[in-house]
Amino acid sequence: MAAVRSRMDDDGVDVLLVSVGADLPYLTGYEAMPLERLTMLVVPRGGAATLVVPRLEAPRVVEQPEVFDVRAWDEIEDPVDIVATLGGRPRRVAIGDQTWARFVLALQDRWPTVEMVAASTLTGPLRAQKDATEVAALRAAARAVDAVVADMATRPFAGRTEVDLSREFVERMLDAGHDEANFAIVASGPNGASPHHTPGRRVVEAGDVVVCDFGGRMAGYCSDITRTFVVGEAPDGFAEAFAVLEDAQRAAVEAVRPGATCASVDAAARRRIAQAGYGDAFIHRTGHGIGLEAHEEPYIVEGNVAVLRPGHAFSVEPGIYFPGRFGMRIEDIVVVTDSGVEALNTASHAVYEVA
Amino acid sequence: MAAVRSRMDDDGVDVLLVSVGADLPYLTGYEAMPLERLTMLVVPRGGAATLVVPRLEAPRVVEQPEVFDVRAWDEIEDPVDIVATLGGRPRRVAIGDQTWARFVLALQDRWPTVEMVAASTLTGPLRAQKDATEVAALRAAARAVDAVVADMATRPFAGRTEVDLSREFVERMLDAGHDEANFAIVASGPNGASPHHTPGRRVVEAGDVVVCDFGGRMAGYCSDITRTFVVGEAPDGFAEAFAVLEDAQRAAVEAVRPGATCASVDAAARRRIAQAGYGDAFIHRTGHGIGLEAHEEPYIVEGNVAVLRPGHAFSVEPGIYFPGRFGMRIEDIVVVTDSGVEALNTASHAVYEVA
Repeated sequence: MAAVRSRMDDDGVDVLLVSVGADLPYLTGYEAMPLERLTMLVVPRGGAATLVVPRLEAPRVVEQPEVFDVRAWDEIEDPVDIVATLGGRPRRVAIGDQTWARFVLALQDRWPTVEMVAASTLTGPLRAQKDATEVAALRAAARAVDAVVADMATRPFAGRTEVDLSREFVERMLDAGHDEANFAIVASGPNGASPHHTPGRRVVEAGDVVVCDFGGRMAGYCSDITRTFVVGEAPDGFAEAFAVLEDAQRAAVEAVRPGATCASVDAAARRRIAQAGYGDAFIHRTGHGIGLEAHEEPYIVEGNVAVLRPGHAFSVEPGIYFPGRFGMRIEDIVVVTDSGVEALNTASHAVYEVA
Repeated sequence: MAAVRSRMDDDGVDVLLVSVGADLPYLTGYEAMPLERLTMLVVPRGGAATLVVPRLEAPRVVEQPEVFDVRAWDEIEDPVDIVATLGGRPRRVAIGDQTWARFVLALQDRWPTVEMVAASTLTGPLRAQKDATEVAALRAAARAVDAVVADMATRPFAGRTEVDLSREFVERMLDAGHDEANFAIVASGPNGASPHHTPGRRVVEAGDVVVCDFGGRMAGYCSDITRTFVVGEAPDGFAEAFAVLEDAQRAAVEAVRPGATCASVDAAARRRIAQAGYGDAFIHRTGHGIGLEAHEEPYIVEGNVAVLRPGHAFSVEPGIYFPGRFGMRIEDIVVVTDSGVEALNTASHAVYEVA
């Protein structure tokens, strides 16, 4: 909180407003429910912070009087009025990136001349660089999903629906100590060419490539891993492309070090894939930061000239996709160290052959 | 879509922008992923609609050329520029209520003089009144969670953590045909006094009152039910308060009919609870609309003079909470019929005695 207040001074932000998303737990330990009743932390520059929270959710708040006061609002009150009053007469306001539009618009009605900026301009750089405790939490979450990969590699895939397999990934994440599962993509056969496929009723069969991308939260920090499974014999063209993918993923990880740009890490993977002739089949960026949120700064994408520093944690996850046939992806979470990089996931990158 | 375009004409809205939340599947059948890559439907008044979607999510879109075009954006493009270009030079824009603040602010940078309003001013009244197909979907989802209640009433509670019981509610919802679980509150003993309690490591013990509030989605439509369980013998004061709660819940349902106001339904429950001396212990509104989203219009709350019409579907869920001791709540989903009301949940309201 002190670091954020310091940045408010530097950026001339009079009031910081934080609602749904990870900025709130980062600053207070409390997470807002993503519902229509407004929860909002109001931090006036130089003044006491107040957490405005629905009365029925106030019992969930662990009070920290030295950090913030609590203002519970009743169903017949307008929380936007309460926030506007607490915020005073600001000129420049930073508002949490994921705050719902309806609350942004309602606040702008109260403050018609205020300049609003995204709160991530203050919190993003702070949250992106993890300290040792945060890295330890990310490492523990990564090891837990590594174990899930090893477990699932012993399980039969053929004859089961994607939904059924996805449920088993979720169950095993929870059994492995995760507090919640965020997602469990199981994309089989032609569905594997859709990087964000929603698991469906398709039944996995012999010869399928199955892309499994799953993650959750453990002690507040996120996991995210992708491995590629094959049921029996792989289809024509798979092995050649997969060798390129493994090489590209390794090259990108080796490009990670303090002082390198995000774009250079993306380029390292992209170059290998393009040189092998699959450039058009790698249709997304190489990675995203991870921490309290599954996706956060820094983004490992072409054009992002931001420089990596020790403590930056992110995914390295190139993929190759052949529409109508199959896809493949390898994803590890890595963290920038003082001298290079540590891969937090240690599960083998090789294809997992399953029954 | 035709109805929404008609409302755009009535309200002088030049462009409708729809992103995360249920307005998008309501209009297109496609649901945006709640991530940092922008998905946005752009509907210019009188012009063709375009779905702007990240390239890697484009394979998830089921194309409907008669309803919208698809514009996939690559990682090196700025989707806000694309939306602003498609939107032209509007004076008045309606934007989805849950759109992330960072996108609202970025669009306002492109369109500094535009007046923005919440899209729910257009879509809310349409979505609130369910047709027969939608009511059938809500009924089926309600019956599924009714069956989960009956199942769980035969299961032991004592000696298990809230988290463990919550996982079982989730599993049983999925087994009962739900596509996803939205939440499964298990609030035992003193935790029951926190209406939105997050299930934790507390072990349920003999004499506990356990409030179980759970729901999910089945074929697109949401379920939401609360029943109160007691492990063995109920604590002092429970039976008297629970009798009042049952009476209040029944009175509120009986107040539902076409032409009644939302506030009158809330008042019917609140009056009974207050008359019995528990007024301060009922700390939330009586209910919320339900449909594609778990919470939507109409809200059954003091001060809401909106009039109920056939097809309005919402929860009726009064509760009584004693901090430090226990809580209780009974929740059914009901729908306004041509002449009165139908309760979609049919599981008994009585206390469920469990081992």
